[in-house]
Amino acid sequence: MVDHLLALDPRGRGITSFFVEGGATRAAKALARAKRVVLTTGFCVGPGLPETDGPPGTAVLGRALRSLGATVTYITDAASLPPLQAALAALDEPKEIQIFPARGEAALSARRFLDEYAPTHMVSIERPGRTRTGDYLSMRGESVAEWNAPLDALFLEAPRRVVTVGVGDGGNEIGMGAVRARLLRAAPRLAKAATVVSATHLVVAGTSNWGAYGIVAELSRLVRRQLLHSAEDERRMVQACVDAGAVDGVTRKPEATVDAMPLAAHASMVELLRLIADMHPHGGKSR
Amino acid sequence: MVDHLLALDPRGRGITSFFVEGGATRAAKALARAKRVVLTTGFCVGPGLPETDGPPGTAVLGRALRSLGATVTYITDAASLPPLQAALAALDEPKEIQIFPARGEAALSARRFLDEYAPTHMVSIERPGRTRTGDYLSMRGESVAEWNAPLDALFLEAPRRVVTVGVGDGGNEIGMGAVRARLLRAAPRLAKAATVVSATHLVVAGTSNWGAYGIVAELSRLVRRQLLHSAEDERRMVQACVDAGAVDGVTRKPEATVDAMPLAAHASMVELLRLIADMHPHGGKSR
Repeated sequence: MVDHLLALDPRGRGITSFFVEGGATRAAKALARAKRVVLTTGFCVGPGLPETDGPPGTAVLGRALRSLGATVTYITDAASLPPLQAALAALDEPKEIQIFPARGEAALSARRFLDEYAPTHMVSIERPGRTRTGDYLSMRGESVAEWNAPLDALFLEAPRRVVTVGVGDGGNEIGMGAVRARLLRAAPRLAKAATVVSATHLVVAGTSNWGAYGIVAELSRLVRRQLLHSAEDERRMVQACVDAGAVDGVTRKPEATVDAMPLAAHASMVELLRLIADMHPHGGKSR
Repeated sequence: MVDHLLALDPRGRGITSFFVEGGATRAAKALARAKRVVLTTGFCVGPGLPETDGPPGTAVLGRALRSLGATVTYITDAASLPPLQAALAALDEPKEIQIFPARGEAALSARRFLDEYAPTHMVSIERPGRTRTGDYLSMRGESVAEWNAPLDALFLEAPRRVVTVGVGDGGNEIGMGAVRARLLRAAPRLAKAATVVSATHLVVAGTSNWGAYGIVAELSRLVRRQLLHSAEDERRMVQACVDAGAVDGVTRKPEATVDAMPLAAHASMVELLRLIADMHPHGGKSR
């Protein structure tokens, strides 16, 4: 139902070539009865430069799952902590966040975390996933390994019984390993940065925040309750991320935009997703 | 490019079954170099009750074509005159509108009008088209023939060289004859009201105004100039229609909504279409 909106590609990046129909619907169904959910996000495009895409989507999805009764745990690295805290604060959500170590044995850190929190579900929203060679690349093809902790180890080390959801918009994010073959056949730019890290359910969207909002819209329809934030919340969240040091991931400027799209576009996306979230399953036009 | 947005079906009316991929793009290409365009709109859902869907889309498309150098003529019937005037006035557009007679020989009136204005192109946006039996039906299956002049005669009498565009959202509007076979196979509700009046290019959308805006978004991309109105214009236009006596076509209440969707939804649709209209043909994300 939300696919039409998620598949919007206003920047012409060609997401059609790796879009997954029904991804948000399946992710929502999987998450609707989740007990313990771990959510991660955070993409640094330069030293100490986390981007505005990811934290808002994570905060909105985390809030929705919490309101459905799940125990929600956030984890990111030190560099991406401020915008995630800011997004959660903008929604008046608890902002306790675990920090994944930037150094040391990532697989070991991951297993310790998984043992301690025993998640039934894990969600990644716009978080770098490693390439076949173990590097982490931006869509410009530059290595961002130095600025992003190897948090994808959580998704590689998780027991198979854990249901995982990945949300991305470029091909280099955790979860996108699920469409790796399509990415390799697509543009060379996409093939080079493509990750090997997969997820049970993959949600592709024009911008990753939209993918997370799409899951929440589908959750809303499932439980017949509006779980999405307001357009005004959206504006406040993105601004709060920038105030906390985040930059636009495309322009790399400290401005309240996401992927070079103005706040009005994101507020509008939220508004239309809310309309779908409110939709009565058997509604109809009677004119 | 705009299909994703036009195909949005927040009321679950099943437009997928008769949606036309690429319709707005083809209509825009056909209209980009139009010399003399006749535009019509107006759907009365009861006596003296024109609806809010149609006039805003017509005013926005008419303004765009005028700014591209076309000679634009509007025609509707007396009942639908006030909202179309109001929508044009809200955009500071000239509001001279021809009136099609409600009584008399429709085919004759149509031929006289066609002789006088000699249009190269004709566009209908949310205007009733006759059924196989010559009646005009609402989506509720009620006859609306008494309240809407047989203006579709223009599209039946026009010489074949005239390029016609129809915009609709239900199946009972001028132009929808082009997908009549699909409508007959779809829900019985759609089959009953389906019109026989076709058009060269058909644009289907969740709401007809959106279809017209979609054409203008594609025109904008063709000429690399933003021809769409602003979200604020959208709010003012719909309110102006209601102030002029229009009602919501679904709720039939005199409120500033269109097809039971709030102004925020329509403003958001305009905002996202503007984003696509602004899109650089070779844009790309470089994160």
